[in-house]
Amino acid sequence: MTLTGELLIGAAEVPATAGTMKALNPATGDLMEPEFAFGGPQEVDRAVRLADEAVDSYSHTSLSERAAFLDRIGDMLEAVKDELAAQTSEETGLPAAQFVGEAVRTADVFRKFATVVRQGRFLQATIDPAQPDRQPAPRLDHRLQKVALGPVVVFGASNFPISYSVAGGDTASALAAGCPVIVKAHNAHPGASEIQGRVIQQAVADAGLHEGVFSLVRGAGNEIGEALVDHPLVRAVTFTGSEVGGMALYHRAQLRPDPIPVFTEMTSVNPTFVLPAALAARGAEIASGLAQRAMYNVGQACLKPAILLAVDGPGFRELRDAAIAEVERAAARPMLTPGIHDAYTHNVQRLEDDGASRIAAGAVSAHTWDGQSALYEVSGSRLLAEPTLREEVFGPAILLVRLADPEQLLEAARAFRGQLSATLHAETADRVAAAQLLPILERRTGRIVFNAFSMPQEVSYATTHGGPFPATSDSRFTSVGMGAIERFLRPVTYQNFPDEYLPESLREANPLQLWRVVDGQLAQG
Amino acid sequence: MTLTGELLIGAAEVPATAGTMKALNPATGDLMEPEFAFGGPQEVDRAVRLADEAVDSYSHTSLSERAAFLDRIGDMLEAVKDELAAQTSEETGLPAAQFVGEAVRTADVFRKFATVVRQGRFLQATIDPAQPDRQPAPRLDHRLQKVALGPVVVFGASNFPISYSVAGGDTASALAAGCPVIVKAHNAHPGASEIQGRVIQQAVADAGLHEGVFSLVRGAGNEIGEALVDHPLVRAVTFTGSEVGGMALYHRAQLRPDPIPVFTEMTSVNPTFVLPAALAARGAEIASGLAQRAMYNVGQACLKPAILLAVDGPGFRELRDAAIAEVERAAARPMLTPGIHDAYTHNVQRLEDDGASRIAAGAVSAHTWDGQSALYEVSGSRLLAEPTLREEVFGPAILLVRLADPEQLLEAARAFRGQLSATLHAETADRVAAAQLLPILERRTGRIVFNAFSMPQEVSYATTHGGPFPATSDSRFTSVGMGAIERFLRPVTYQNFPDEYLPESLREANPLQLWRVVDGQLAQG
Repeated sequence: MTLTGELLIGAAEVPATAGTMKALNPATGDLMEPEFAFGGPQEVDRAVRLADEAVDSYSHTSLSERAAFLDRIGDMLEAVKDELAAQTSEETGLPAAQFVGEAVRTADVFRKFATVVRQGRFLQATIDPAQPDRQPAPRLDHRLQKVALGPVVVFGASNFPISYSVAGGDTASALAAGCPVIVKAHNAHPGASEIQGRVIQQAVADAGLHEGVFSLVRGAGNEIGEALVDHPLVRAVTFTGSEVGGMALYHRAQLRPDPIPVFTEMTSVNPTFVLPAALAARGAEIASGLAQRAMYNVGQACLKPAILLAVDGPGFRELRDAAIAEVERAAARPMLTPGIHDAYTHNVQRLEDDGASRIAAGAVSAHTWDGQSALYEVSGSRLLAEPTLREEVFGPAILLVRLADPEQLLEAARAFRGQLSATLHAETADRVAAAQLLPILERRTGRIVFNAFSMPQEVSYATTHGGPFPATSDSRFTSVGMGAIERFLRPVTYQNFPDEYLPESLREANPLQLWRVVDGQLAQG
Repeated sequence: MTLTGELLIGAAEVPATAGTMKALNPATGDLMEPEFAFGGPQEVDRAVRLADEAVDSYSHTSLSERAAFLDRIGDMLEAVKDELAAQTSEETGLPAAQFVGEAVRTADVFRKFATVVRQGRFLQATIDPAQPDRQPAPRLDHRLQKVALGPVVVFGASNFPISYSVAGGDTASALAAGCPVIVKAHNAHPGASEIQGRVIQQAVADAGLHEGVFSLVRGAGNEIGEALVDHPLVRAVTFTGSEVGGMALYHRAQLRPDPIPVFTEMTSVNPTFVLPAALAARGAEIASGLAQRAMYNVGQACLKPAILLAVDGPGFRELRDAAIAEVERAAARPMLTPGIHDAYTHNVQRLEDDGASRIAAGAVSAHTWDGQSALYEVSGSRLLAEPTLREEVFGPAILLVRLADPEQLLEAARAFRGQLSATLHAETADRVAAAQLLPILERRTGRIVFNAFSMPQEVSYATTHGGPFPATSDSRFTSVGMGAIERFLRPVTYQNFPDEYLPESLREANPLQLWRVVDGQLAQG
C-alpha cells in the first residue's frame, strides 16, 4: 500500500487544507515521508454530513450483511498485518513483532463483533403481546429493539496504534451497532492510521455500503477535535487518553445545545493488593510478574499495574527484592512521543517530591526519548496523606507501598479513585482479609483480578474495560469486549404495528430466530 | 396516617431547619395543615451519608430478599390508596378516583420490579470460562455481572404525584437495582409525598434493611436540589420536569469533579401524523381520540399528543371539526400549581404571537388557576418557519397543522427535535408514505405508535419512555418500564476468582438458576 497522507472522507482522498506533518521515528529522531494532510472544520463537516447521510441505510443493513462487512474488515486487516506492523514499529520505536500480534488480535475483534451482530442479542428484542381483554383497559402490542445512535466520532489513542486506534475496538463496536464512524487519527502514528483507514474505506466500497460509513480525518492542535465534538450531527464520541484531554472533550460535548454521550477512558493505576499469606508464599513471584507487565510497552498501557501494596511482614523483602531485580534488568526503550517522554520525566520527579524513594532503576537512556524504568517505594501513611501519589504516571514506573498493618491496607483501598482494574493476591489463610477487601474494590473498579495480573486484556463477552470516574466518564459501559456495542444503541418501542412494518427482529414469525423476551420470558424462535 | 410534615431521613423524623410551607389546594386556593419542613445542605448530607453507608449491605441483598422488599412496598402502597388518593386530590384539584388508579398502578410497578429482580436477567451474568490450552496464551476465567451504582437522588415530578413522585418508577427501579434512594419531594404535593415516603420508610424497617436505603427531603428554592446534585457520595440523579430545570441539574452534575449520570426526562410534543387514506377514512375519530387524551390531567402529561399534522384534503374538515367539538366541550379544571397555570397562559399567547390561530376553546375558567382548553391551527409552512411552534405548551392546548402536501409532511417530521413518542395513522393505501415517514420518526423518538394513541403509557418490558434530546438527556435509557433499572447499574468483571468468592449469580453451579451468557451463548442452569 502506498501511503499518500491524504484524509479519507467517504470514498474520497482529500488533500491538506490546514498544513501537513511528518511522522517521527522516536527511536532515531528522524522524520519520515510522506507528508500527512491536516484538515479543519470544513473537512469535519464534509465527513459528518456524509456519515449522517449513511445512517438510514447503514443502520438498517441486515444482520448478515453487517456481519459480513465486519468479517471483511478483519480479513483485510490481517492481510496487511506485516506492512501495518512495520509502519507502526517505525512510528513508535517498538518492535514490529508486537504489532503483528496486535494486528491479528484487532482483526479478530472485528470477527468477534461480526458474531455479536449475527447473534443479534444486542438488539434486545422484546415483545409484550397485545392483551385485548385485559381489565380495566386492554394492552396494545409493544415491541422493542435497540437502534443505532447515529454518527460516532472515535479519537484514536496514542499507546496502542492498532487496537485502540483507527481500526480499534471503538470503531469495531460502533460499526457493529450500525453507526457510521469518523475517526480522528492520532498524530503519533499517521502512517499506521492511514493503512487501517484505507482498509476500512476499501471494505465499505467492496460491501457496496454508503461511502459515509467511514471517514478518517487529521488535524493540528485541538481545532479539529473541537469541530468534531461540536458538530450538530454527531451523536456520540469515544476517547482514550489523558484525564485532562478526555474531560475537556467531555465537558465540551455536555455544553452543546444537545449534549451527547462521550465515553472517555482516561486514567487508572490498577492497584495490586498482596495479602499476608500470599505475600509469604509467593511475594517474589508476584513482584516479578507484576514488574514485567508494568514495563510492557514502556509502561504506556491503561492496564499497567502501577501500584503494588503489601503489609510489611514475611515475604515483603522477597517481593521488594524481586521487583528491584526486574526493574534493574529492564532496557531503556523509546517512548511513543517526545511529549509523553517529557511528561514521564516530570511525573517520576513528582513521585520523589511527594516523598517516594527511588529504590531501583533500569538501564540508562541511550536515545533522547527513551523511558528509563524505575521502582519507587513509599509508606502507607505517606500514600494516604498525598493524593497525587495515588495518580497515574504514564510510563515504566512502579510504586511499591509498604503498609503498616491490615487496617491501613483497607484504608488505602478506600482512598483510590475509580479504577479500570484492581488485583488481589490471596491464599486460603487470607480469607477474612479478602472478604473485607473485595466489596471495597467492587465499588471502585470495573474488574477485580484474583491471583493473576491485570494484563493482558481479554476481548470477550465477560470483559469490562471501564469503571468509576476517572477510569471512565461513564461507568455504566465498557469500551472493550462485546459489551462495548451498548454504548452506541438506544431503545425504540414499536406500538401496535402491523407485522409488515416491523423491523425483521420483531416480526411475529421471528425470521431471524433471535432470542427475545416475550411477555417477560426469554424465548428463541 | 397522621401527617407531621417532617423530613424522613433514614429511620428518623427530622424537623424543619430552613423554614416550612403549607400545601395549596389549587381548586379552592386554600392552604392546608400541617406545616411541612424544609431542610438544607446539612439534612442532605445526613441523608446521603446514610445512603452511602447502606450501599454495601443493600446492594448485596439476595434477589429474593430484595424482591420481597419491593413487593412489600407495593402492598403497603395499595393499602393506603384511598388515603393517598384523597390527599393527592386535595393537593392537585384533580379527582380522587384518578389517584386511586394511579396508586394501584404504582403499587403494581413495585411488584413488577420485584419480578424483574427475581428473574435476575438485569444482572446480565456472563461467563467466559478459562481456556488453559488456548494458543498463543491461555485464557483466564472471566465472569461479569452488573452491580448497583450507589446512592441515587430522585427529583419528584409535579404532574403525576404518585407514579412519577416519591414512590414512582424512578424510586422503584433504583431500589430494584440495589441503589439506596434519596427523594427530593416536589412542593406541589407535600402530603402525598409524606404518605408515600412513610410507606417506604416503614417497609425498610420491616425488612430489617439499613435505614439509609431511603430518605425523603424537602426544601425551598434550588438550594436543596443543588446540594443533592453536588454531594460527592451521590452516584446518579433522575429528574422529570422542564427542559430548563432538567438541564440546570444536568450541567451542574457534569461540572462536578467527578461527573455523574443524570437522567432527565424533559419535553416532548409527541407529534401525530395522519396520512391521507387514514384521514379520509377516520379523521374525526382520530381527532376526537387525540383531543381527549391531550386534555387528560389538564394537559399536564409528558405524553400529551400536542401537535396533530395532516395534509389538507379529504377528511381534513372532519378531523378539524371533531377536534373543535371535543375542545369546546372541555371543562376548565385547576392546573397543578399557580406557576404552571401562569406559564400555560403565557405559552398559549406565544402560539398566537407565532402565527397560530385559536379555532376553539373550552369552558371559561371559574377559578383563578383553572386551565382553559384551546385548539390552535397553523399552516405547515409557518410550523417550519417558527421553531417555537414545535415546542411544548404544558397544559390543555392542541396545535393542528394544516400541511400543504406530502413532501411538507416529511419536512415537518424532520424538523422536530427528539421526542418521547410519535404517532402515525395510516391505512393500507398509505403504505408508501408510511415507509418514507417511519425511518424519520425512528431517528427522532423513543416510541412510534401505529394507529393508536400515545397515552396511556404501559409499564412493561417493551416500554420505552425515552428518546433523543430534549425528550431526555440520554437516549440510551428509558425512565419507565422494566428497562429503567439499567440506568443504575454498571458491569464488573471477576477474573480468575475461586468459586466461593464469586457473587452467587456467577457461581459455577448456577444456584440462582439464572439465564447466563456462557462462552457467548445464552444458557440457563
